[in-house]
Amino acid sequence: MTEEHGYEISPWELRWRGLDVDALQRTESTFALSNGHIGLRGTLEEAEPRGLPGTYLNGFYEEHALPYAEGGYGYPEAGQTVVNVTDGKIIRLLVEDEPLDMRYGEAVEHDRVLDFRTGTLTRSTVWASPTGRRVRVRTQRLVSFTQRAVAAIKYEVEPLDDDLQLVAQSDLLANEPIESDTKDPRVAAALESPLVAELASAKDYHAVLVHRTRVSGLRMAAAMDHKLDVGDGLRVRIEAEEDLARLTVAADVPQGEKFTITKFIAYGWSGTRSIPAVRAQVEAALAGARQTGWKGLLAEQKQFLDDFWATADIQIDGDQQLQQAVRFALFHLLQAGARGESRAIPGKGLTGPGYDGHAFWDTESFVLPVLTYTMPDAVRDALRWRHSTLDKARERAAQLGLRGAAFPWRTIDGAECSAYWPAGTAAFHVSADIADAVIRYLNATGDEDFDRQYATEILLETARLWLSLGHHDRHGGFRIDGVTGPDEYSAVADNNVYTNLMAQRNLRAAAAACERHPEVAAHFAVDGEEIGTWRAAADEMVIPYDEALGVHPQSEGFTRHADWDFAGTPPEHYPLLLNYPYFDLYRKQVVKQADLVLALHMCGDSFTPDEKARDFAYYEARTVRDSSLSAGTQAVLAAETGHLSLAFHYLAEAALTDLHDVHNNVRNGLHMASLAGAWLGVVAGFGGLRDHGGNLTFAPRLPAQLARIAFRVCFRDTRFSVEIRDGHATYRLVDGEPLELTHHGEKFLLEAEPVSLPIPKIKPGDPPLQPFGRAPLRR
Amino acid sequence: MTEEHGYEISPWELRWRGLDVDALQRTESTFALSNGHIGLRGTLEEAEPRGLPGTYLNGFYEEHALPYAEGGYGYPEAGQTVVNVTDGKIIRLLVEDEPLDMRYGEAVEHDRVLDFRTGTLTRSTVWASPTGRRVRVRTQRLVSFTQRAVAAIKYEVEPLDDDLQLVAQSDLLANEPIESDTKDPRVAAALESPLVAELASAKDYHAVLVHRTRVSGLRMAAAMDHKLDVGDGLRVRIEAEEDLARLTVAADVPQGEKFTITKFIAYGWSGTRSIPAVRAQVEAALAGARQTGWKGLLAEQKQFLDDFWATADIQIDGDQQLQQAVRFALFHLLQAGARGESRAIPGKGLTGPGYDGHAFWDTESFVLPVLTYTMPDAVRDALRWRHSTLDKARERAAQLGLRGAAFPWRTIDGAECSAYWPAGTAAFHVSADIADAVIRYLNATGDEDFDRQYATEILLETARLWLSLGHHDRHGGFRIDGVTGPDEYSAVADNNVYTNLMAQRNLRAAAAACERHPEVAAHFAVDGEEIGTWRAAADEMVIPYDEALGVHPQSEGFTRHADWDFAGTPPEHYPLLLNYPYFDLYRKQVVKQADLVLALHMCGDSFTPDEKARDFAYYEARTVRDSSLSAGTQAVLAAETGHLSLAFHYLAEAALTDLHDVHNNVRNGLHMASLAGAWLGVVAGFGGLRDHGGNLTFAPRLPAQLARIAFRVCFRDTRFSVEIRDGHATYRLVDGEPLELTHHGEKFLLEAEPVSLPIPKIKPGDPPLQPFGRAPLRR
Repeated sequence: MTEEHGYEISPWELRWRGLDVDALQRTESTFALSNGHIGLRGTLEEAEPRGLPGTYLNGFYEEHALPYAEGGYGYPEAGQTVVNVTDGKIIRLLVEDEPLDMRYGEAVEHDRVLDFRTGTLTRSTVWASPTGRRVRVRTQRLVSFTQRAVAAIKYEVEPLDDDLQLVAQSDLLANEPIESDTKDPRVAAALESPLVAELASAKDYHAVLVHRTRVSGLRMAAAMDHKLDVGDGLRVRIEAEEDLARLTVAADVPQGEKFTITKFIAYGWSGTRSIPAVRAQVEAALAGARQTGWKGLLAEQKQFLDDFWATADIQIDGDQQLQQAVRFALFHLLQAGARGESRAIPGKGLTGPGYDGHAFWDTESFVLPVLTYTMPDAVRDALRWRHSTLDKARERAAQLGLRGAAFPWRTIDGAECSAYWPAGTAAFHVSADIADAVIRYLNATGDEDFDRQYATEILLETARLWLSLGHHDRHGGFRIDGVTGPDEYSAVADNNVYTNLMAQRNLRAAAAACERHPEVAAHFAVDGEEIGTWRAAADEMVIPYDEALGVHPQSEGFTRHADWDFAGTPPEHYPLLLNYPYFDLYRKQVVKQADLVLALHMCGDSFTPDEKARDFAYYEARTVRDSSLSAGTQAVLAAETGHLSLAFHYLAEAALTDLHDVHNNVRNGLHMASLAGAWLGVVAGFGGLRDHGGNLTFAPRLPAQLARIAFRVCFRDTRFSVEIRDGHATYRLVDGEPLELTHHGEKFLLEAEPVSLPIPKIKPGDPPLQPFGRAPLRR
Repeated sequence: MTEEHGYEISPWELRWRGLDVDALQRTESTFALSNGHIGLRGTLEEAEPRGLPGTYLNGFYEEHALPYAEGGYGYPEAGQTVVNVTDGKIIRLLVEDEPLDMRYGEAVEHDRVLDFRTGTLTRSTVWASPTGRRVRVRTQRLVSFTQRAVAAIKYEVEPLDDDLQLVAQSDLLANEPIESDTKDPRVAAALESPLVAELASAKDYHAVLVHRTRVSGLRMAAAMDHKLDVGDGLRVRIEAEEDLARLTVAADVPQGEKFTITKFIAYGWSGTRSIPAVRAQVEAALAGARQTGWKGLLAEQKQFLDDFWATADIQIDGDQQLQQAVRFALFHLLQAGARGESRAIPGKGLTGPGYDGHAFWDTESFVLPVLTYTMPDAVRDALRWRHSTLDKARERAAQLGLRGAAFPWRTIDGAECSAYWPAGTAAFHVSADIADAVIRYLNATGDEDFDRQYATEILLETARLWLSLGHHDRHGGFRIDGVTGPDEYSAVADNNVYTNLMAQRNLRAAAAACERHPEVAAHFAVDGEEIGTWRAAADEMVIPYDEALGVHPQSEGFTRHADWDFAGTPPEHYPLLLNYPYFDLYRKQVVKQADLVLALHMCGDSFTPDEKARDFAYYEARTVRDSSLSAGTQAVLAAETGHLSLAFHYLAEAALTDLHDVHNNVRNGLHMASLAGAWLGVVAGFGGLRDHGGNLTFAPRLPAQLARIAFRVCFRDTRFSVEIRDGHATYRLVDGEPLELTHHGEKFLLEAEPVSLPIPKIKPGDPPLQPFGRAPLRR
């Protein structure tokens, strides 16, 4: 079954049948393979036609100057941009001197499949050359989850009608020309040919290229080796020059026989190691891959994914497309987080160059909650990366006249790269979001080593930030003025509720951590008095409330601002930021993305159910969802407030954001936070999972559109499943120790025996209304 | 008497004796000559040594792209920068083959004088060449007030010891190389060689060069002609190439005789006229100047200034330096405004390239109040310039989603050039400031033609802006949210008191003007209903007040913000904007420049005396005066609240800002608003002049430091003087009709007979305190 957006609907794979050159940009993102360290966009092996080629190494970037017409103190001077590194996924084919190019001749069959269980992208093409010669090309590609530096391609050609002379060229290609999106000539200049050749070597079936970036001075190596199975008449040549290494294989292949190349590729980079050292690193990885062999890599990949799905799978009965979308989301979240290790998880993962490859608060607030309960080691690694940037965050805080650590709004290496301070520097909540991810990870794993070695330092430095950012007013209340919350259609306001509540828990968690680890506290000169100031600030935190309306203003004064003229805003004027000035958006009651509503989710224990219902309804009427960060959270709150149908639509929107290209920019990469929103919509929305104070609670609900939802969760090394059916939910232990859980407010102990519990009825009022024209699509 | 800053103190002139190469940049600004159309910096005739050469034509600019690392809807894309045009003030001298250069040989005598009554800059130098040959050089320079396109130089050399061969080269030099201040390579590129040669012609003693700018496409012409009086043995050559026209005069001059060149220079520019047309324009001006002759030009200049001083002079007994500074201020204000005619009055006049030559709200709020009572025709012309930019202001409003006209924060031609919207676009008060200048001008002149042809349109379009910017809240109050007031250490706040009060009077004045001129109202489709909405908005205008503190917050919430740590701010950290991020300045109670205090002055009829006293004291403690726009206003309020000694110190600071280079940037040009602050400090401060509602009122006070203050005012064609002595003030009619005035609340009619009235005693409390280290210098 193929749906309107081109993909076939199937529970465990994403398939596109037929050739659609215009859709290549989109499918290059959705078909991208990654292990969190290496990312390969889903381009065709022959490199063209293509949208954007893309081969990325996590953390590998070029630097460029940030221009300001009117500069200011503390403005970051250097920007960072992800680099399209040496492309190793290219294998070109000549069929009797005619280059295989899908734009010419005929694509008799063409079929590509991303398989969520094998972790491979396969292609099956029957191509007739312009002169009518037909070949079948089958390729399979993987980026190894188990061998972090390795990718591999199996490339197979079969003449269908006659004996044919086939020539394959397997490349490593650096500095591929790319059409730039950006208008800034300096950014473009930095990226036009970002890699400087340092070494090129080729011998037998093996080649290596070493390059470094011009400005940031990072060094990378790419290497390839091949296994050939091409019958008789083989002629092989290998050569390497500055930006190109090429293995050329020519053979006469009889009809019915196959010409097969297995290509092993290895990548490595370093900011400090020498040319011989990075070369040695990739050649060692390549030797390991060859020793494992193609079948071995495939088997390891399958084993890795079997384990992942056993921990993380979600089943949805009653909506096949949603089932597929949710697994697609989980698969890409796994790809983004699995082997990032000491690096960030960028907003687009490694699926495209969008947002310059930067990581944002999205990672901690949307992606890490998913991984905390599905792949906690990836969370540990991601937070260790944040920890490794603490010196930069401390420097930034000091530059801003603050204490502690101010984590950056957008970055690759930990340095602030945001050139627009009202939406960057002022969005201090990013530091509380990181602290919150730390607290959640600790609660979910009880990882004491991490607590001592990393968590306490992050918590105490962020607590110091909040104490220096806020002040006690005349009545003692602790105010945090002039900051920007999650909603990017407001900025630089006083006492943003989300920020203040998140800071409150940050301060308290820091106090507790310092008391757990007095030796760490002492090392950072935290004494009892300082801890006392944190607790006092948390206790006195100002949370504005509009008594007249009975709702929380997003920030102080918000509910007194003018309403946005939604009725007078034509559909083509969305997203608003492209059609209205910031000044107008900032001073009116129009919300780009969940902000107060995100507080209702993340800090749900600070609101009564009534407050949640009123606040959610109020902000629903003002939230336009111009951000991909919003639908998942709205799904969660819609479910909690009993608007299950609305929750279902929001869940679908979040899950299908990239498959349906809702924001018309999937060509630049997938929206990791939106994919995470799919998990959140299911597990935190319909599952009602909350982890306030380290207690894992559920409040399952089933929307009328679905027959059954089942999901898996890992908590403190125990894996269990939750199955939601009409009227009751069943909890089952998969493996691990018994666990105390809460179902709709009632505690119970989950042991070997499944526990089935009834779902209490809920009678919500009328569903809240969205701004004119901005309701989620009804399925 | 020479004081520490290098100038000699004298009531009617500014003199610098001796050579100080390092001080040249400063004196080039203070010695600048201008008539509001042409500006010549006070460089030496031989062009070097120099700080910044500078020849400016009002309104003549080059355009450059404004760079943004992160752009946004509605951001201006084009910047404008004043161009250093063809330099006609250069006359080089060779003394027996040795170029006169003050850095070599010896400056035996060197003396420069700016004369406020003749409107000339004279120089008297005795220079001994490195080989010991002595000459006396006397020069006198003027930019004609009466012949707008004309400048002239009389250049005289006298051999002191021997007969000497002298060679003079009189140049027109385009594209002089300038060391750029800016770091932005694109701005620098635009300015490196901004002029493209279009025509060069020379014949006899006369030459002309025509150029145009590369991007903005404006065309200018410069021409020179000479009268020579050089005795025997004359050899003359004239030549012209693209960027240089040169008259070379060689003569053997006997000891005791003089070698005299009179150079007439004419400038013109146009955005539309052809090369022959602009050439004809300057050649006609030159013909007029030659016909008038040097003596004639001098006489006209003197006559013009006599008339100005008869209208505008201020006398201060008891402080000679202040007397000089105040006349210096008036002289430069005259130069900035006299003949601008259809152009803006830039923030630096035409004295330097600072602020890119842009005009700001300073003009309407500080400079025009002075000119309104001293040279009202200049005000009419400056406001007609604003009127001529109404289409651009309407376009800008439409782009921002607003009605009416949004005047730009900074501009040369009327288009918004501010690249930082929180301090530019959001500072909408500029439109109310322009409206206020219109109202003041109408009140002071009763100019009915202007009212009908210009004022009504400006008022109604700005009223429309306010109505679309604000909204009525739930209780009916009219709020103006998310805007920036005058204080640049706060931004994007709700209900800025200054802005709201100024908008209030703008709305009311627009209503009244439309009722005075129903045919104009009808032309712009203003009906009674719309007028009603203006009056309703004005009547319901929200003016926040902090009941607990008993003061007005500058904007809503201001008084709840954290205090700035003044005690912990070292002196070298001022100005704060160079050492602290905007985010920190914006969210704390630190004020760069009078904002609420400016409201106390401009909208003084909206506050009680008690409120003024409390508000002034509150903001005194929080105002750091990092802006040159502040001291004059603080002087006014200090005087009004009875703190006369404090008012005196603020007046002195305003008056001496440029002579003492208080902000260490006078090299880039004079601060016109600060010079205006000197007049405001005297006339609105110690004179107590207010014009609320068109009633001219005075409340004279004399500070203990002075024996007498006298100033002149022109109101509705009546010129009169006010003389303040200890205990009483005397009002005298100079010419014109009798006038009703108010003295300390008591009305009286001023007729031919002088009126002497007692000054009531005032007992203020303790003088308010300034932030640590930020009190004005005590004299």
